[in-house]
Amino acid sequence: MRNLFQGVSAFPITPADHAGQVDTDALCRLLKPLVHDGVSSIGLLGSTGTYAYLSRQERRRAIMAAADCIADKTPLIVGVGALRTDDARTFACDARDAGADGLLLAPMSYTPLTEEEVYQHFVAVAGATDLPLCIYNNPGTTHFSFGTDLLARLATVENITAVKMPLPADANLATDLHRLRQALPSDFIIGYSGDWGCASALIAGADSWFSVLAGVLPAHAVALTRAAQTGDATAARALDARLTPLWTLFKRHGSLRVVYAAANLTGLTNAEPPRPLLPLDQPVRQELSAILTELGAL
Amino acid sequence: MRNLFQGVSAFPITPADHAGQVDTDALCRLLKPLVHDGVSSIGLLGSTGTYAYLSRQERRRAIMAAADCIADKTPLIVGVGALRTDDARTFACDARDAGADGLLLAPMSYTPLTEEEVYQHFVAVAGATDLPLCIYNNPGTTHFSFGTDLLARLATVENITAVKMPLPADANLATDLHRLRQALPSDFIIGYSGDWGCASALIAGADSWFSVLAGVLPAHAVALTRAAQTGDATAARALDARLTPLWTLFKRHGSLRVVYAAANLTGLTNAEPPRPLLPLDQPVRQELSAILTELGAL
Repeated sequence: MRNLFQGVSAFPITPADHAGQVDTDALCRLLKPLVHDGVSSIGLLGSTGTYAYLSRQERRRAIMAAADCIADKTPLIVGVGALRTDDARTFACDARDAGADGLLLAPMSYTPLTEEEVYQHFVAVAGATDLPLCIYNNPGTTHFSFGTDLLARLATVENITAVKMPLPADANLATDLHRLRQALPSDFIIGYSGDWGCASALIAGADSWFSVLAGVLPAHAVALTRAAQTGDATAARALDARLTPLWTLFKRHGSLRVVYAAANLTGLTNAEPPRPLLPLDQPVRQELSAILTELGAL
Repeated sequence: MRNLFQGVSAFPITPADHAGQVDTDALCRLLKPLVHDGVSSIGLLGSTGTYAYLSRQERRRAIMAAADCIADKTPLIVGVGALRTDDARTFACDARDAGADGLLLAPMSYTPLTEEEVYQHFVAVAGATDLPLCIYNNPGTTHFSFGTDLLARLATVENITAVKMPLPADANLATDLHRLRQALPSDFIIGYSGDWGCASALIAGADSWFSVLAGVLPAHAVALTRAAQTGDATAARALDARLTPLWTLFKRHGSLRVVYAAANLTGLTNAEPPRPLLPLDQPVRQELSAILTELGAL
């Protein structure tokens, strides 16, 4: 049986107004193409889904709307991170009740966390529901980096079945993946985020791509993933190469700001990122528009 | 006239139960000695005051209780940081309404922020009230580091009158302070946090010490500050040297965890840090107990 966290998981934005109220109609318009184009799962309320900026009520509204829109055609993974352990447990229960199939948990931090604090936080949140949980290792936003020993310890916790890794600093994905395979159970799912490195990760044998691109250009992400996971590295590399101009914008401006602008350009929503995050400047939007046109997405 | 942000500002913990409900009686017990021992101001809901982990309602309860307890004997500065700009504006208005004399604003981040985003965030929050506002430059928790140009730009914004700096990485405080004095208006208040470097900062001529120590051992912090600011560097250095064992614990375990344990040991509150943060282990508490006894605080 295919694991919930395998394949290409699409992380869409969560369109909301200036006061943080989610536009559930626009959210469904964004989700429909992801289902249609066959992403392996939808990762709602990830970092790109601005979970950290949304209230409990708005997170629930988003999940219920997504579950209703997806109608069980694609598995639904929901981010439940919070600075407080009790809040993260509450969000996990809310996600389960609203229709999530699995959870994603990032160790959000303000005061820097110790390994033991992160361990206990994950045990507490994993124990809040029966849903499978993926460790969200994203030091760029959480400012906590999981050591291999901590991952191995967490992999023994019931329900914790996967990890979403950042690209390794030295970019040698095969080495990084090998190190993790040695340390983790054989059925533990290992995937990567950082779209510009994910073709390499999939070709190296990673189980999953947690993809920002797939939240806005699902067909491109699905094609790349299928090529890589069926052993056609040449085709995967070619698709990746076509996306290079987009990766450049992701790295320069942050993928979140870029995919908001992309969603605006496609006409599916005029939502902007939550302030203090600012929308892309007009010259960059024009550059993006040209890239999306070249990719056949506009 | 003395500026609100000058001198030694004491940053107490905000005692709360496991669900995040503030114990206002315990808060007042912690504040009374700060007023009595003559700290220059009280910095409520700073990082040590776990503002990032408290709801809007609990922040309001804490400010109202503190204002009532302090009864205008000591100026009250309140931290109003939030991930969302609209929330930070709301917290600023709440703080004003609940009796704050000034505001402290940290650029909390999840998605890494650009300089322009931080600038606009600060302008928006400073404009929410007429209260003076201090920039809280604390990259260790906010993951945003203010460049000198951005500080200079923010110093021209009405209401923004001070900055709370981290210790410079190279620890040359005189050079750091000189650089800032050159770039900022002559009446702009420049203070430091990072207790183990603050004797040096005050001796070098910094206007303020934003002090975790002063939230739990106010007499020691006031004595050190007075010595340094009246030109008695020898006495200030001697007081600082006596505190070295405490600085070692601050650096090793995080000052927040240490001052929770100190507040427990003094018997003023049995509150623990908000989970996922964990209280200090018993052996470290014993070490701390010996240090506090040596300092005459137990």
